[in-house]
Amino acid sequence: MKYATYTSGGETFFGAVTDAGMIALSSDFPQWPTLLDVVQAGALDQLAEAAADKEVTHTDFQYEMVMPNAPRILCVGVNFPDRNAEYKDGSAQPKYMSLFPRFASGFTGHERNLVRPPENHTLDYEGEVVIVIGKEGRRISQEDAYDHIAALTLCNEGTIRDWVRHAKFNVTQGKNWDSSGAIGPWLVPFTDAKQLDDARIVTRVNGEVRQDDVLSRMMFPIRREIEYISTFMTLKPGDMIVTGTPTGAGARFDPPRYLKPGDVVEIEVEGIGLLRNGVEDEVV
Amino acid sequence: MKYATYTSGGETFFGAVTDAGMIALSSDFPQWPTLLDVVQAGALDQLAEAAADKEVTHTDFQYEMVMPNAPRILCVGVNFPDRNAEYKDGSAQPKYMSLFPRFASGFTGHERNLVRPPENHTLDYEGEVVIVIGKEGRRISQEDAYDHIAALTLCNEGTIRDWVRHAKFNVTQGKNWDSSGAIGPWLVPFTDAKQLDDARIVTRVNGEVRQDDVLSRMMFPIRREIEYISTFMTLKPGDMIVTGTPTGAGARFDPPRYLKPGDVVEIEVEGIGLLRNGVEDEVV
Repeated sequence: MKYATYTSGGETFFGAVTDAGMIALSSDFPQWPTLLDVVQAGALDQLAEAAADKEVTHTDFQYEMVMPNAPRILCVGVNFPDRNAEYKDGSAQPKYMSLFPRFASGFTGHERNLVRPPENHTLDYEGEVVIVIGKEGRRISQEDAYDHIAALTLCNEGTIRDWVRHAKFNVTQGKNWDSSGAIGPWLVPFTDAKQLDDARIVTRVNGEVRQDDVLSRMMFPIRREIEYISTFMTLKPGDMIVTGTPTGAGARFDPPRYLKPGDVVEIEVEGIGLLRNGVEDEVV
Repeated sequence: MKYATYTSGGETFFGAVTDAGMIALSSDFPQWPTLLDVVQAGALDQLAEAAADKEVTHTDFQYEMVMPNAPRILCVGVNFPDRNAEYKDGSAQPKYMSLFPRFASGFTGHERNLVRPPENHTLDYEGEVVIVIGKEGRRISQEDAYDHIAALTLCNEGTIRDWVRHAKFNVTQGKNWDSSGAIGPWLVPFTDAKQLDDARIVTRVNGEVRQDDVLSRMMFPIRREIEYISTFMTLKPGDMIVTGTPTGAGARFDPPRYLKPGDVVEIEVEGIGLLRNGVEDEVV
């Protein structure tokens, strides 16, 4: 079963996604205004039960960022071995992971356009798997880490490359442009370690494969991410961790191959889904 | 008039602060569950009107982080001229400001203890002025910037120094330890440019002055911060910008003078208030 946030008739709801369309579920659960509330209540299972008895209600709808009100989104940088080499700064593999927050406002939904701003055209893609925390914890061991994951989704961690390098420290201003990335299409409940351990992630631009790797090659595996992050902050239901992107982003080509209006980026992980986004220029 | 979030009898409320104590206001405004909701509704003035007719209701209460559910907190790093020199890396004054998000979970309230974790004892203070956005805007000009500020407060932008340097990029893991900093004591409505332009900020540890500077010396003035940040993201009511700290944090002494249990840190700006925090060791 898959759960999404969508807009229809100018209002935003959550529902279950089937091949035939959306099954509206918001009205069954007035106690939970958003999908985030469902996750925080640990109630994805209840959505499955409610959807089992229902027919498709919507075929004409727009996907939203899967949890548009996600309170905390932490991204892991430089997490595949060749990615560190891509920086060409001669540094050895780092001892600790690089982490940066992104606000939910930086992400749109599936089948929506990423926005290229007029200030800078170095818009780039990064395909990543996202975990959604379902159980609170601090100083979580790697052994217990997967028990804290409620669901999975995908991210195009779209970046304005030139702005990442604006400041002495921190990538904040290159990573938080409104609607420069996407998270979705939906949440898939996490029920089996193989969903992550055997996952292969592929990013295509206009059908051409640009990134293709397996999560088992991460320098900092997802279990370690949860252990490390929960050392300094209590992880809470609804927190999202964007787990890192393989080599092959547009900035790494010579010359760079940035995204332009009309391009279509697809990020696919079998068992999770396919996140597809076009690109448009912002009209100011 | 000053507005705070406080806990009494195990429940959290907002109210107006007077010299004699707290005037409870939550029950007058059931439509706004938190002070953040009041700010987002642009309704601080209505709190003033309601408080004008009332007596003090609480003298025994605990301050909370002034908006514990603040959705987006952006901090400006290295923003006083001598701070850049403190890094001793020979770099010229940067062209753009350094920015990093902090989650609300990293901050406690006035008269509460900062928490020093067992993993690392390099807990350090940074006194800063915080602006709270009251009016949405994108690509805001410096001239218009102050029109977007609803209120002011103070921050002890407490940091675990060793963890700031864990990663190749980004300070995230040194800046987001649970209750490692504080924001408060209260919100003061922003009504006059002089509240910022003439402000002097002083940080004391156990009564000894450690930081003492004026906001007019900032490399990136607050008007520029608003202009720059709103270039890449739409600023919204309730957003907080932690505007930068002067020289004199504990890490800059030789040897460093980090905080230890029993220390008391005070951050004071005339016209805004005094934020006072003790320090305690976390019991794990």
